[in-house]
Amino acid sequence: MSQNVYDRDDFFEEYSKLPRSQQGLDGALEWPVLKDLVGDVSNQCILDLGCGYGWFCRWACNAGAKKVHGVDVSSKMLEKAREFTSDDAVLTYAIEDLEVISLPEEQYDLVYSALAFHYVKDLSRLFREVHGSLVSGGRFVFSVEHPTFTAPKDTPKFRTSDGREDEYIWPLDSYAEEGPRIRNWLADGVLKQHRKIESYVSCLLQNGFTLNALKEWTPSLEYVKENPKWKNERHRPLFLIIAAQKIS
Amino acid sequence: MSQNVYDRDDFFEEYSKLPRSQQGLDGALEWPVLKDLVGDVSNQCILDLGCGYGWFCRWACNAGAKKVHGVDVSSKMLEKAREFTSDDAVLTYAIEDLEVISLPEEQYDLVYSALAFHYVKDLSRLFREVHGSLVSGGRFVFSVEHPTFTAPKDTPKFRTSDGREDEYIWPLDSYAEEGPRIRNWLADGVLKQHRKIESYVSCLLQNGFTLNALKEWTPSLEYVKENPKWKNERHRPLFLIIAAQKIS
Repeated sequence: MSQNVYDRDDFFEEYSKLPRSQQGLDGALEWPVLKDLVGDVSNQCILDLGCGYGWFCRWACNAGAKKVHGVDVSSKMLEKAREFTSDDAVLTYAIEDLEVISLPEEQYDLVYSALAFHYVKDLSRLFREVHGSLVSGGRFVFSVEHPTFTAPKDTPKFRTSDGREDEYIWPLDSYAEEGPRIRNWLADGVLKQHRKIESYVSCLLQNGFTLNALKEWTPSLEYVKENPKWKNERHRPLFLIIAAQKIS
Repeated sequence: MSQNVYDRDDFFEEYSKLPRSQQGLDGALEWPVLKDLVGDVSNQCILDLGCGYGWFCRWACNAGAKKVHGVDVSSKMLEKAREFTSDDAVLTYAIEDLEVISLPEEQYDLVYSALAFHYVKDLSRLFREVHGSLVSGGRFVFSVEHPTFTAPKDTPKFRTSDGREDEYIWPLDSYAEEGPRIRNWLADGVLKQHRKIESYVSCLLQNGFTLNALKEWTPSLEYVKENPKWKNERHRPLFLIIAAQKIS
């Protein structure tokens, strides 16, 4: 069973204040990269693993998807998602735990997930399920917190460079030690799973996927120029974004 | 034209003292991973880009390769390589600059490279050449310094963790700023090229390769137990090792 921190009142309250909660996809700086990899969804059957407020599900409906199913472990999240939904014929939601979820066979053209898999312990089991649920040639697009971000043992913060008060570094440690990390993010004691880029890629290849794209998201130089407080975010990638495809 | 630091006396003298120079492949801790990805080379035609002392070329000959060609920008390196070579019918060497090298069409079953591409500025041009030089289904296996290692602007060193004198971190910075890095390693002023993992992978996919494996090398826990001075090397990967294949 997952930790389901999203149903904790303290976490949920803070989460609901984030730009990506209030503004949806436009509040997520990495969305343009995901959108590009997702491509045309018209007439497709789509599954969103960890759908949260359902922003992507609604986007997919508006973009002409045939069927969209969003799942999340958090009932609070799904409650929010359902507030905005009227068309049950196209868009459905269900509570599911990604650690134990069972997916129907060859059902989806696209499986999508944003920032959910770094909570999942048994990724290989989940990727096998995803693979089985895709039609031949079906696509799998997901984002996770980047491994340089999840690696440090304690909740890391940028710190000043040796002897340079105006320059910052990201204190990377324990990259090779895969497994649980406790983070104080939005609330105390949030449980995440660190794994190497190698492990995300190997898990795909071993489960019958071919890799179509691998992106390491940082804000662009232009964005940082207009938003100087994002400058340090170029020191290490914040998100890992992957597109894969079912080949067998 | 590449910097060719290997022909500088000060660098070459220090380089020749490294375990991997003196002991060959057995002195390179990452060799078992590369060897596993290289697999069976019997009766294959092989190209080694940046062959150095020719350790891999000789290994491939002994492992039953049909033809092995090693190229390097450094005449000092090739001089060493040739000292150990007797069989010109199987094993040949040539001076080549990877920035401008032209390769014959559909000649090789395997193109190999160890720790050379982080000196190369125009990787896309080189990967196109490699792709053209491989037979259909031909394999491409290489290692580079890992991007978390090449990223920092200045030559980085492990430093102590905030408030913990006995714990160390790797000061990561400038990951998103791809391009030249000047390193003081073995000698001063060594020019390397930093690029993201994203860029290595994209460059392969865009040039007609499919990805077969991506490994981020750190020493194993067992190795660190026996060699405690390698402990910090688990804080970030030292090498990125990739296996790809020509599909089109």
